[in-house]
Order: sequence, then C-alpha cells, then structure tokens
Amino acid sequence: MKIIEGGVCAAKGFTANGIHAGIRKNKTKRDLSLILSEVPASSAAVYTTNLVKGAPLKVTRANLLNGIARAVVCNSGNANTCNANGIEIAKEMCQIVADEANIKEEDVIVASTGVIGQPLVIDPIKNGMKELVAGLNKNGSDNAAEGIMTTDTVKKEIAIEFEIDGKTCRMGGIAKGSGMIHPNMATMLVFITTDVKISPEMIKKALSSDIQNTFNMVSVDGDTSTNDMVCILANGMADNSEITSEGKAFDKFMKALNTVTVYLCKMIAGDGEGATKLLECKVSGAKDDKTAKIVAKSVICSSLLKAAMFGADANWGRILCAIGYSGADVDVEKVDVSFKSCKGEILVCKNGAGVDFSEEKAKQILLEKEIEILISLNDKDGKATAWGCDLTYDYVKINGDYRT
Amino acid sequence: MKIIEGGVCAAKGFTANGIHAGIRKNKTKRDLSLILSEVPASSAAVYTTNLVKGAPLKVTRANLLNGIARAVVCNSGNANTCNANGIEIAKEMCQIVADEANIKEEDVIVASTGVIGQPLVIDPIKNGMKELVAGLNKNGSDNAAEGIMTTDTVKKEIAIEFEIDGKTCRMGGIAKGSGMIHPNMATMLVFITTDVKISPEMIKKALSSDIQNTFNMVSVDGDTSTNDMVCILANGMADNSEITSEGKAFDKFMKALNTVTVYLCKMIAGDGEGATKLLECKVSGAKDDKTAKIVAKSVICSSLLKAAMFGADANWGRILCAIGYSGADVDVEKVDVSFKSCKGEILVCKNGAGVDFSEEKAKQILLEKEIEILISLNDKDGKATAWGCDLTYDYVKINGDYRT
Repeated sequence: MKIIEGGVCAAKGFTANGIHAGIRKNKTKRDLSLILSEVPASSAAVYTTNLVKGAPLKVTRANLLNGIARAVVCNSGNANTCNANGIEIAKEMCQIVADEANIKEEDVIVASTGVIGQPLVIDPIKNGMKELVAGLNKNGSDNAAEGIMTTDTVKKEIAIEFEIDGKTCRMGGIAKGSGMIHPNMATMLVFITTDVKISPEMIKKALSSDIQNTFNMVSVDGDTSTNDMVCILANGMADNSEITSEGKAFDKFMKALNTVTVYLCKMIAGDGEGATKLLECKVSGAKDDKTAKIVAKSVICSSLLKAAMFGADANWGRILCAIGYSGADVDVEKVDVSFKSCKGEILVCKNGAGVDFSEEKAKQILLEKEIEILISLNDKDGKATAWGCDLTYDYVKINGDYRT
Repeated sequence: MKIIEGGVCAAKGFTANGIHAGIRKNKTKRDLSLILSEVPASSAAVYTTNLVKGAPLKVTRANLLNGIARAVVCNSGNANTCNANGIEIAKEMCQIVADEANIKEEDVIVASTGVIGQPLVIDPIKNGMKELVAGLNKNGSDNAAEGIMTTDTVKKEIAIEFEIDGKTCRMGGIAKGSGMIHPNMATMLVFITTDVKISPEMIKKALSSDIQNTFNMVSVDGDTSTNDMVCILANGMADNSEITSEGKAFDKFMKALNTVTVYLCKMIAGDGEGATKLLECKVSGAKDDKTAKIVAKSVICSSLLKAAMFGADANWGRILCAIGYSGADVDVEKVDVSFKSCKGEILVCKNGAGVDFSEEKAKQILLEKEIEILISLNDKDGKATAWGCDLTYDYVKINGDYRT
C-alpha cells in the first residue's frame, strides 16, 4: 500500500471540481464542489445521530436507498438546516446537478455545511453549475477539497494505491471538519472514492464497521453537528472480481479504507478550530475495547485537559479526573499515564498517584505539535484510540462571532 | 424570608475564620478556613460522583456516618487527591482542628481544593491552627469564604432569615467553584450553616433532594471534579421544635435551603473560570421534568453556544443542535427559542426554524451580563433550569497553565 497524489480523483473514472459560486460573500473562497464518477458506483453513507438533521442528509438517505450513486455535490457557507424549505432546496441541488451532468437525480449525494437556520438561496448554485460541471477534471480534487472548507485552515486530502486480486486499486478521500466535531457519527463531511469493485451491501458493511474506531473517536468540542456525514463511492473500474462477501479481498479493502479514514481523522482533529496540537489518546489494558473507548473519549473531550495541553502543562491530574467521571468500569488505583511526542516519552502517574518526573522534560515533550497520551488501565486487553486537539484562544475567537 | 448579612456566621452559634497559613506561596491569599458550631449539629453532605475521590471526601464521609458534626476545615491550593498519603493527611487535619478547638476528631468535616496529585504538606496547617481557632468570630464568614477560593474572582456568600414555629431562624452559606464544574454532584465546595433544629435523617433528605435541581444543574466546563462537596450543619439553636418528618416546617426549611442554594449556584456559574456572563437556560413544555433537565444541561454545556454568548451572537442554531444531540425525547420541529435579559426578550426560533428578528435588538439583549435562554418544547408540562457561563479567552488562559 502506498500513498499517492490525486485525492478523490486518484481512483479510475472519478473527476472533481470546486468553484466560487457566490454562496459566500468572499469571492476568493470556493463554496461549491462536485465529484463525479463515469459510471454508477456502489455507495454507502453514515449520518449524524443528532435529532436535528440537515435537509441534505434526508435527501441523500432517500437517494442512497438503492446503494448506488454517481455524484457528490456539496456547498459551504450555509448548512441548509432548520429552514422551512430545506428539503426542497436540497432536492433542487440534486436536480440541477443531474440536468447539467446528464445523470439521474437520485444518483446524487448532496451535502451542505455552514450556518444553521438561514435560508439557502438556490440561485448561485443554479447559475454556477455549468461552470462547475464543465471544469470537472482529474486534477480537481484540490479545488473540491477547498470548496467544502468552513473554518478549516488546511485542505484534508489523501489517496492510496493497493492491490486486490492482482489488480491495482486506488482509494482517495477529502474531508472538512473543524468545529462541532464530536463522537457519534457522522460528525464531519468526508467523501471517499475508490475504483474497487464491491457490492452495495459490502461497502455499507465496511463503512459502518470502520467508523466505529475512526470518525466516532474524534472530538474537537463535544458538539455533534446536525449536518455531517461520511460517504463512499466505489465504481468498480479497477476491475477486480466483485467483493460480495467477507474474506481476503474484503480484509484488504477494510485495511485500505482504515488507512484513508485514520489519516483523515488525524487531519480533522489536528485542524480543530483554533487548535495548535493534535492529541492522540491511546488506552490499553482495559477490561474490554468498549471500556477503553469510553475512557479515551472522556479524556480527549476534557476542556481542562485540552487547555492544559495548549499550555504544554503536564497536569495529569486532569486525566485521572476525566477517567474517573467517564462512567467506565476502571480501578483508578491501577492507572498509569505517560506523555509522548517526537521528543520522547515520560511517565507522570503510576498506580493512580503522581511519580517524580522532570517538569522540564515534560514541557519539552508537550511543546510539540503531536502529543500522545498513553493510558494503561492494567486490567485486561481492551484498547482504543481517540483523537482530539487542544483548547485555545482561537477556538473562542472563531466561535464567539462565527456568523459575522 | 429576607436576605441578611453574616454568611455562615449568621445563624446562632456559628463562628468562622480564614487565614494565610502558607499552603499557597502568595502571602496575600488566605488558604485555610474554619467554621465552628458551639454545639454538635445535624449534618449531611453530598459528594462528587467521580470515581477518583479526594482523600478529604473519604474521611468526611466516615466522620459523618453518625449525622453529627461541629466544624468544617478547608484548605485551598492543594486538593490532597491522588497522593499516596492523602487519607493520613486528611485525618491529621481533623485531629489538629479537634485538638485546638477542643472537639472530637470525628466531628470535623474536612475539604481541600486545588491541584491534584501533589502531596499536601501538613506543616503550614499544623502551625497555623492556633491562629485560625483563636481568630474565630461572628464576622469571620468573609475570611472563611476567601480562604476556600481558587480561581474564583468573587467571594460567594449569602445568609437569610425566616421563621419556623414562630421562631426566627437563619441560614447562611459560602461556596467556591469556578472550573471543573459540571452536573453530578458535588462539583464545587459549598458549606451551609443554620440554627434550625432538624434531625440528621431529615437534613440528609433535604440536601439530597435540593441538589438535584440546584448544584447538579450547574456546569462551567463539563469536568466533574474529584474533590468537591456540599455540606450543611444545623445546630438547633433557633430552638424550634425539631423537624423529624415531612410537613409544613420541613417545607419551610426546604424553601429556605433552596433560596440559599439557587443563589450560590448562580454565583458559581456567573463566576465560572474566565466567564463574563451568567447563562440561565429555562426549559418548559417538556414531556416531563427529566426530559427538561437533559435538554437544559445539554444546552448549557455546549462549547459552541458558550462561545457564541461570549460574542453576544444570537446563533440559535447551536441551541437547536445541542437539543438534538442531548438524547432527550423531543420533537425538534416544535421547539421555540427566545433570548432574554434586562434589555428585553426576543424570539429567534419558532417550530424549529428561524424567524425574522432584529439582529441589533438581539445583540443589545446579549451584551448584558445575565442572559436567559428560554426554550419551549411545546409538548407537556415538564420544566427545568440550568446555570452556566460563556466560554472566553480567559478560560483558556486560566487553564492553560494552572499549576504555575
């Protein structure tokens, strides 16, 4: 398996584009993206668990009932959520894409991200569609990735190449997600494309299984968004024999998918609103994986710990505290905690109590941009990883006046 | 019922004091407080639900098994938690108080607040006790309130006078609590004294019932502390006939207690770390009170909403979002939301969708220091109130390097 260029266009048969259509006032910011497959693709998606669901998610869910899609259209700047005419507008977006790209309306996946509760005006989308479709190309992943960004500071994009059945296969993804990021699917927008041949049933199974240990383990601020989703399109153009059941080929597919999703998880967490650091909390020795997950999530969500990490302060008591209120079945007097980065590793807590450690070395480790928080519960073999970021002045700044 | 001066010394038979004993380096900061009752008092306490519990809480719980206490000792600057010798030190604190004040060791309630995981040295407490006890007086509540403050910016103190049985009764309280404040008892330190005569059983019942709608409905940052507790001492010196069962006198007592606790809740929430505003979220029309509580807590805990309030931004979509992920059984298409302050009230969302409103007026309302967020679920009669604060630069600053 190797990392390659091309993002969502790396796989055979996919093109993409992103333009400034005028949904946002800032003319230098792309705000409308499209990904298109030459042929119908097996597709699956997972959606936010928030009871308030964006209208685009409802339309996408209906369109994906047959497990087939050809295009993903997504605007930024407006979430098309909590609007009386939301469904109508989301359907119209699909219709406009279908007309211009000459595909079926129900083969379009539609997504929106941005402010909630402000009507989405369709005109810029209608007027921009000709340009958007005309510009679809094999190098368009960058522009598509830009078009879905909101407060993101970096584009999130990856592609990999691997083999199934002796056939070269490719998979690529783009993502957005910065605030309102919290466990319980699907808390960001992620679009993945691949040319692997796989049935709609198996791609659904693959995605549902993978997100439990990837996107559901990312938290930026504990707010589960109303709008976000992860979707995957597999158009079969790599020409492997179709994956229709579990087995060796499916395992390879799962491994490829996991490579793409973990990479995007880390990019999303590290680019959390205002973040200066990526935090990776690795829990081991838990009673079971579920317990490890509860602990990892609780730690990564602690505002106090996140603020301490911003200050490069080895305040491990806050980790013990977050383990203690997590609700997980843990013997707190057996807990060990270490911090780790490219500058080394340091044990700060053993058996639930502090140990003598060099504050200077801890500071050096915590001043890095990627920090691992290693927690051993010393019980059984359960383990889990969660990703998050520090809490900074800029998080407050970005969210103190997001709408203006 | 009327508000009076005197804090925890307002009730007959109670004296208090607070000094700088040397636990903190800053010599201008009091760090050791004591409250003493002339006679044994019916006492009850509620404790944090965090699995990691401060050593003082364990010692207090043991001391309160008989429902009787005479003194509360509390230091700030060190939480005496996650230390190998924590229990020993907490017991020693009780012993030192007992020796100097000539009371029984098991009649002492002990509490500590501050950094977790750093050994608490007993010497300053031992050396300061003579001065602390000698200085006990009827005007000592202010000093005691100061001695328990950590990152608090204001003293939290109240006293009231009321009648039971034709006898004048008094009740007063002091509190600390600023960060690590979150539902699920007991997430701050609150010491309440009264001269009402009430049995240990009934005072326990009163406190356990009251906190469900008061301290458990306060959140500053979602982190449930390891150390905090609420305790009450009733020394009976008002000479009413002892309250030993439910009835009119008990109801009066409950009302007095609720007045004290709601006042302290609002003070704690409004003085949340870095806070510039007190947020009061009032939910009505819920299926039942439990549903209303879940919704109110979810809204008050949303980092995104808290940051929006800091920016006086009427971003009501974040309220809908927090309702949607709360887990409560709610029809999101029936939700109405208004903002209210001394500058007026404004409806921003009706039936789950935005309404036209004056952004200017909304800004004017939200620029005030006390904001009510009114949510009507338009289902049945369930209601609840939760208290919190905005999320600000200073929260990050305070917690980015708390230990130094």
